[in-house]
Amino acid sequence: MASSIFTSVTRLAVFIFVTSLVSCLQVISAINAPNLPRQGVVSSDQILRNLIDYKTYYFDQKIDHFGFAEDSTFKQRYLLADQHWHKDGGPILFYTGNEGDIAWFCNNTGFMWDVAEELGALLVFAEHRYYGDSLPFGEQSYSDAKHLNFLTSEQALADFAMLTEHLKLDLPGAKHSPVIAIGGSYGGMLAAWFRMKYPHVVVGALASSAPIWQFKDLVPCDVFYKIVTDDFSESGKGCSESIRRSWKAVDNLTSTDGGLQWLSDAFHLCSPLKSKEDALFFKSWLSETWVNLAMVDYPYEANFLQPLPAWPIQVVCKFLREPSLPDKDLLQNIFQAVNVYYNHTGNTQCLNTSQTATGNLGYIGWYYQACTEMVMPMCSNGVSDMFEPQQWDFKAFSDDCSQQFGVRPRADWATTAYGGKNISSHSNIIFSNGGLDPWSGGGVNVHISDSLVTIVIPEGAHHLDLRFNNPFDPQSVLKARALEVQYMKQWIKETALNPGSQSNKIV
Amino acid sequence: MASSIFTSVTRLAVFIFVTSLVSCLQVISAINAPNLPRQGVVSSDQILRNLIDYKTYYFDQKIDHFGFAEDSTFKQRYLLADQHWHKDGGPILFYTGNEGDIAWFCNNTGFMWDVAEELGALLVFAEHRYYGDSLPFGEQSYSDAKHLNFLTSEQALADFAMLTEHLKLDLPGAKHSPVIAIGGSYGGMLAAWFRMKYPHVVVGALASSAPIWQFKDLVPCDVFYKIVTDDFSESGKGCSESIRRSWKAVDNLTSTDGGLQWLSDAFHLCSPLKSKEDALFFKSWLSETWVNLAMVDYPYEANFLQPLPAWPIQVVCKFLREPSLPDKDLLQNIFQAVNVYYNHTGNTQCLNTSQTATGNLGYIGWYYQACTEMVMPMCSNGVSDMFEPQQWDFKAFSDDCSQQFGVRPRADWATTAYGGKNISSHSNIIFSNGGLDPWSGGGVNVHISDSLVTIVIPEGAHHLDLRFNNPFDPQSVLKARALEVQYMKQWIKETALNPGSQSNKIV
Repeated sequence: MASSIFTSVTRLAVFIFVTSLVSCLQVISAINAPNLPRQGVVSSDQILRNLIDYKTYYFDQKIDHFGFAEDSTFKQRYLLADQHWHKDGGPILFYTGNEGDIAWFCNNTGFMWDVAEELGALLVFAEHRYYGDSLPFGEQSYSDAKHLNFLTSEQALADFAMLTEHLKLDLPGAKHSPVIAIGGSYGGMLAAWFRMKYPHVVVGALASSAPIWQFKDLVPCDVFYKIVTDDFSESGKGCSESIRRSWKAVDNLTSTDGGLQWLSDAFHLCSPLKSKEDALFFKSWLSETWVNLAMVDYPYEANFLQPLPAWPIQVVCKFLREPSLPDKDLLQNIFQAVNVYYNHTGNTQCLNTSQTATGNLGYIGWYYQACTEMVMPMCSNGVSDMFEPQQWDFKAFSDDCSQQFGVRPRADWATTAYGGKNISSHSNIIFSNGGLDPWSGGGVNVHISDSLVTIVIPEGAHHLDLRFNNPFDPQSVLKARALEVQYMKQWIKETALNPGSQSNKIV
Repeated sequence: MASSIFTSVTRLAVFIFVTSLVSCLQVISAINAPNLPRQGVVSSDQILRNLIDYKTYYFDQKIDHFGFAEDSTFKQRYLLADQHWHKDGGPILFYTGNEGDIAWFCNNTGFMWDVAEELGALLVFAEHRYYGDSLPFGEQSYSDAKHLNFLTSEQALADFAMLTEHLKLDLPGAKHSPVIAIGGSYGGMLAAWFRMKYPHVVVGALASSAPIWQFKDLVPCDVFYKIVTDDFSESGKGCSESIRRSWKAVDNLTSTDGGLQWLSDAFHLCSPLKSKEDALFFKSWLSETWVNLAMVDYPYEANFLQPLPAWPIQVVCKFLREPSLPDKDLLQNIFQAVNVYYNHTGNTQCLNTSQTATGNLGYIGWYYQACTEMVMPMCSNGVSDMFEPQQWDFKAFSDDCSQQFGVRPRADWATTAYGGKNISSHSNIIFSNGGLDPWSGGGVNVHISDSLVTIVIPEGAHHLDLRFNNPFDPQSVLKARALEVQYMKQWIKETALNPGSQSNKIV
């Protein structure tokens, strides 16, 4: 039971959080080409090279900011782009890297590149420890619980604070530059927490698609899957109902060897299903596919997790209009639907159920984080959502973590550390969320104060606002970005009016 | 040189910080006796027993809040007094324990006992890890750098946050109780930082005599000794000048064996001086004595560090009116002066230069903290102060720390972690300081915002405002306490108007 929990609901939630953040190389194809016809997608490489131009640096960070017995350092990677920076007061936009290679996030956060010139901003992309090149113990970093011990959000925030202070001292002209934290997804959580815990370091934060409330007792555990379901329900008649009915159809078929074989053939699986366990894994893979689609349901052709058409769920749902078909017919349609996700190019030879996305992000690191601090309860009920009912079983989850990493999750800690819903005393944070994004269920979508701004982008999937401008962007995301820039300008102006608030010196 | 630094300026600063916080059993003699004649000091024990009545509890804390490899717990002691508490909304006054036995601080913080009834407050006194009974590894806690590794202010604050959350969940009627942090000296720093880092846990903080700016580059390193000097200069003509001249006199005498003997006899030393090193230590002991006097220069007869008369520096200075006397005559007077401190009772047989205060506080723990995070530069110049010139030598200090504990101090960390002077985005903190208190030099005495209140008590020594009311209190401290209560009532009222801001629950 424990294992099945981990490989289905829990693993799923963890996985998508990671994969939601891969690069958007194809999307930026349309940048600076507002008159480009909808069907045209130009070669992006040249534009990318012109726009994204940074230098790579490394900063010596203490492995342990919160203890002194371990006094060694490691090299934290960060990227700098200063071509538009107005020194001596021009702001610093500081990307709080999340669970992966910082170059991915750099390429993926077109918003920062788009606004750098207007704001006269220096761009900094700081890699999160234990990901990409920033490995505290090199190849040993993931070897055991002892080496993983310094992989926490608190240590990462301390890294960001130390790096920021270093840059302000070290970069000529940076002394009076206000710093604004920007991040998406887990990086967005870090951006918000950076402002909350180190308001003396960053004057404000843009936290895009940051589910800082996806913790115990803060939101219903089924909200995530409900939003996924709504995306499908609203993209075509019979669509979510077809998926809801498909689980039983899979169960029926996988109860016999012949059914397993049929299903393997029907889905063109690279590795045929052979057991009940394979069948469970197959269902988990299907779930991940639907969730991933919800996260990347962007309004234009793109290649994030997979190459996809514009509004991919609408395309998927064209195959799922008849939920009442017999099992095999229904599953044939399900295959056509997932084939949109895995074989939009037409070049895929067979479907690999051990993979739902491209990219090489920090899965193990994020599993570890989920198994320690980032304990985000997920559940489904099969009624308000289209998934199989599955309770949140903390004990089973904890046992799995203990087995895999030798650590136990602390379900309450993140709320004690970061405040849960009780964040009204903080200031200068923008929480933006996409209405289509399942992570918005754990995000901040209610008014808290005039200084904690919430922006909802109804047509937006996962942190759409952080992407490059695109001619096919909905008005809502254009407005969101404009508002975000407006708030950032306000913070910058306020800092300029109170320069003393940014300095630490003897008076 | 390194050693002499550690045993003089540095050690001194560390030492007094600890000893500043011992109990005030005698002072409370005058409580509830406003008409008591000045010369009368009644027996205090009975009154103490009547007023201070608490129960002792223990709470299981994680040894490491910021890592998961060490998952063990230890028992943190805390004291509860609920006799005046108005449940279901009545506030909780939470003392953020500092470097010593929490019972000392409980007895020492009469202010909380005095205001409990008026506020209908529950009193909580939380012991700081590694002090008193709250030893993470029992008798092994101080055995080496590995065991000391979890002695940091961040871990202590996390303890306080976890304990507060526990009490609010566990104590019937506490759910809607706003919590206010209160502390003095290092405990005051913790109270301020508690509000800064966990504003969702405490609605405000009273940080009394909290030198949160006594860190690198935030205040001149000589401010501490300058204030000590001013206390003596203003308490009698020739007083500070006599002390300033005494160092050379000691040097002259201790350059010969006969002089060492004479000095040992003149000062009635328990262990005669025998070497140049003893002479250095003797001067360090004299310095500590002057510093301690400055810290406890209270307006009434009291027994803190030692039994002392009212305004002890004025009494001391009566012996130090003639700075131009020959060496031996000058030092005879210096002896009379220190004898006020060490032999006010007339019962002291000889003076012990290895001790400048009574009490059994956590010296080693505080040394360790000073050797890691709490790096407070101190220096003297002999011109604006009456002490021998001594530079702040970080390298020598660091080498001493390495030798003693196997750790190196991080001089910048506290400012990165807690913001240094850049704290204007925080709210609801009262910084109170006594004008006579040398620690006020590193305290917050300038206006920052309407929500960060600074209160100066010109006639106050170290956290006088946190003591029991006393009929001989100056008006300034009565006003300070009244203002502190007024602000606390305001915070409580604001919380009552916004109850949602204190809850974490599913909406």
